[in-house]
Amino acid sequence: MTMSAEVIQAVDPRNGVTGVAYPPTAPETIRKVIAAARLAREDIGWRFTPARVKALSGLAERLQRRAEPLIETCMAETGLSRARLEGELERTWRQIMLFAALIETGAHYEVTIDTADPDVRPAPRADLRRMMVPIGPVLVFAASNFPFAFSVAGGDTASALAAGCPVICKAHPGHPGTSELVANEISGALADAELDPGTFALVQTASVETALGLVRDEAIEAVAFTGSTGAGRAIFDAAGARERPIPVFAEMGSTNPVVVTKSAIEDRGDSIAAALAGAITRDAGQLCTKPGVIMVPADSAGEFREALREAVLAADTGVMLNQRLYESAVAAVDSLSRLDEVAPVLSEPAESSGHGFGLAGAIFASSSAALRANPELRSERFGPIALLVTYDDVEDLVATIDGFEGQLTATLQATPADEEIAQRIVDHLLPLAGRLVFDGVPTGVAVTAAMQHGGPYPATTSAAYTSVGSAAIHRFLRPVVWQNAPEWLLPEPLKDGNPLGIPRVVDGVPERS
Amino acid sequence: MTMSAEVIQAVDPRNGVTGVAYPPTAPETIRKVIAAARLAREDIGWRFTPARVKALSGLAERLQRRAEPLIETCMAETGLSRARLEGELERTWRQIMLFAALIETGAHYEVTIDTADPDVRPAPRADLRRMMVPIGPVLVFAASNFPFAFSVAGGDTASALAAGCPVICKAHPGHPGTSELVANEISGALADAELDPGTFALVQTASVETALGLVRDEAIEAVAFTGSTGAGRAIFDAAGARERPIPVFAEMGSTNPVVVTKSAIEDRGDSIAAALAGAITRDAGQLCTKPGVIMVPADSAGEFREALREAVLAADTGVMLNQRLYESAVAAVDSLSRLDEVAPVLSEPAESSGHGFGLAGAIFASSSAALRANPELRSERFGPIALLVTYDDVEDLVATIDGFEGQLTATLQATPADEEIAQRIVDHLLPLAGRLVFDGVPTGVAVTAAMQHGGPYPATTSAAYTSVGSAAIHRFLRPVVWQNAPEWLLPEPLKDGNPLGIPRVVDGVPERS
Repeated sequence: MTMSAEVIQAVDPRNGVTGVAYPPTAPETIRKVIAAARLAREDIGWRFTPARVKALSGLAERLQRRAEPLIETCMAETGLSRARLEGELERTWRQIMLFAALIETGAHYEVTIDTADPDVRPAPRADLRRMMVPIGPVLVFAASNFPFAFSVAGGDTASALAAGCPVICKAHPGHPGTSELVANEISGALADAELDPGTFALVQTASVETALGLVRDEAIEAVAFTGSTGAGRAIFDAAGARERPIPVFAEMGSTNPVVVTKSAIEDRGDSIAAALAGAITRDAGQLCTKPGVIMVPADSAGEFREALREAVLAADTGVMLNQRLYESAVAAVDSLSRLDEVAPVLSEPAESSGHGFGLAGAIFASSSAALRANPELRSERFGPIALLVTYDDVEDLVATIDGFEGQLTATLQATPADEEIAQRIVDHLLPLAGRLVFDGVPTGVAVTAAMQHGGPYPATTSAAYTSVGSAAIHRFLRPVVWQNAPEWLLPEPLKDGNPLGIPRVVDGVPERS
Repeated sequence: MTMSAEVIQAVDPRNGVTGVAYPPTAPETIRKVIAAARLAREDIGWRFTPARVKALSGLAERLQRRAEPLIETCMAETGLSRARLEGELERTWRQIMLFAALIETGAHYEVTIDTADPDVRPAPRADLRRMMVPIGPVLVFAASNFPFAFSVAGGDTASALAAGCPVICKAHPGHPGTSELVANEISGALADAELDPGTFALVQTASVETALGLVRDEAIEAVAFTGSTGAGRAIFDAAGARERPIPVFAEMGSTNPVVVTKSAIEDRGDSIAAALAGAITRDAGQLCTKPGVIMVPADSAGEFREALREAVLAADTGVMLNQRLYESAVAAVDSLSRLDEVAPVLSEPAESSGHGFGLAGAIFASSSAALRANPELRSERFGPIALLVTYDDVEDLVATIDGFEGQLTATLQATPADEEIAQRIVDHLLPLAGRLVFDGVPTGVAVTAAMQHGGPYPATTSAAYTSVGSAAIHRFLRPVVWQNAPEWLLPEPLKDGNPLGIPRVVDGVPERS
């Protein structure tokens, strides 16, 4: 991609060919779409759930129908494989349908009613009826590495629209054509559902100042972001420095430490190595859940290291999404190669054809002591790069775990023979992460009610929320209680007799509709 | 109170008599209690719910048993009446019991389980089991105006302990003796329940730097605060500027606008005036839900103004909590008196005996146009002070409402004759506030599941949360999902067969225990 302010242009990572040039959104257009989002706020709120269900369902259908041009355009802009993008697009429309289904049930209102009670101590209680309402216009920053699922019509946009919030989406400059095509489908689906056209707008820009200007705009009520720690923190800081601060839900990636016990290696070392090799190299390691550090016992590391090496060597070579990520990954490999405390296991010279951004998997080895001493070793390296770290015993292991910052995931590969140490290891992994993975790999994030895709800083700026799964809608809602409201002024979800037939808790008891 | 760094000393607001001098907590003691809280984190977490239930229940009993010395000490430190403090103390132990009862049910774990499903598209789903875990040590800032309910053993401490988080409480320097007595009861209750003594510590300080140092301490994971906008924002900024930012749940007060319609004045003008007079003057107006601006139609304002004047004149005169608040309130009255666009309705010279901090109710009148033009008129004035604002028609009214910042509450006094305009007014009040009050006054905050005590900035720093009611526990929990965990590594709340018999949602369906 070209990052000048004059033009936004993807480069095909497979061959270096420059794509269509898109003009950045003009400042006056940005002002207009923000004003329109502010106005749309009233017109798509909680009263308009059926229209929002229709818009989301329509959008899911449109994305299916338009799969072929979307995938073709996206392949040329991102270099991701057809199989991957087919899967990602399906995931994207399915997650849009999940939010449509959720709001159709009315569960997202989270209605809680405590009826008036003159006998409550120390003071009589008024009638209190609480429900969730949309917070207002949401600014979504699209990610480079999921051009569908975390981009223009991704989980952030879908959950914000489902909540009843207008969305301004800042497209990722890495896939401007894909972004335009998807945005057109969103606008079409909103029109079909007769929702205010100001409900959604795409902003194309490669200017950091323009992007931060959106964060600072008085009309914006929350920001959702997926990307690097640096960009996420800049957005968080700008939002916090506003006269009226707003929440930022930034998912900023993760090292995703993996612990393998001795008994797990004895039991299934080769299959663990194969699974990890896949997770490290799939999509050229450009996943925020890629396992970046793998901790194995020193006394059984040798054979495992060989197995991992073989499996990564045998894996397909991918391409990095763009030149910047390619150069960062090459620099990371180079930097690891220069460290005394790190030994190469597999680090062929970066494999570029001279045109594209191809990169082979790279594995390095180090020790727990080195990892504890050098924070750089614990940090995320975007790309097909992983660090194998040997530990001496469980004491050494948990001290090393305690040195990690917040993570999206933490993984334990163990067997029932580890009963004495496994719980201790989990107790140290738990404070780190939002998701604990057992006997598997951290890549692959299911879109479902129980998912938690988040974690303590710097994995995210808000560990209480998830950006994947139906709970992601909570980011864009806030509770309001109607106290002693006459029936004629109560919103439908709170009226006596539950006319919408939605789940409600009344005086502590779930109401049967 | 004396705000020097050398000594913390309340002044009896009823007579100006200086109380016992308390030394500020020594820096080395602060370091020790923070280290102890960090260690206690592991020892009081989700595994220890029964012990936490015992500690909270024991604390509630102890506060009841010790009511007399607590209330005596508190009256001398705050000048609040016996009746008020008796009610507040009862509310305080009842809210502790509410949190004990909540965690005894296990509802706070919010367990959601999605079992493995190989047929899920586009990828098979692993077994996912999500529950809430405590976030770690919480720093609580006690408030001046609720020496029990929002102080050392108030809702913030109770909900954090219930969640499984150690608490460091920064006492308010206005009531150091009350704080010490209450802290002793907390430590006693923790000991009775055999919980780690590091679970709770009181810090007495009048130093802003010491307080902000606590906010910046690496061991602290969240801050709860009730107080002024200035102090709340300073804490929010300090927490956001940390290398690892933490959430701040600051409740910073509110103007609490009240709208009265013409038909409501015709229907029950005198009783509305009487209720408002009580809400303005009760506890010398030192409530964050005190109605500060009352909007009435210009063409029926005269009689209502007289009724309000009479009712406020007849009300008991209270004392301000301390000299600083007394001086601020006197300055606010003085400042309003000097404005051309404001007319006095009732503003006798501030009524100080020369010893205490007594202050009579003060009412001023102005217009919607003046309120829109001058942000000072829309701001909170702590004390028995209110502004009566006349509006011309509903257009003028909603334009005026739109000029308010975020609020804890917004109130509408109307009748069924207002059907045409009332919904419109509510639509404009809704984006402002966390609680909409109908045909009542905003003071009086019930401690229950449906309560929302919060609202858009600057009412709070986090409109998604409440500081009153059982939902307040959400501030101190974060979700974690166990993916594909073997049964022997699952925590009790997530195990097959639901051995704890807690509410869980499994594959979208509430589980029957």
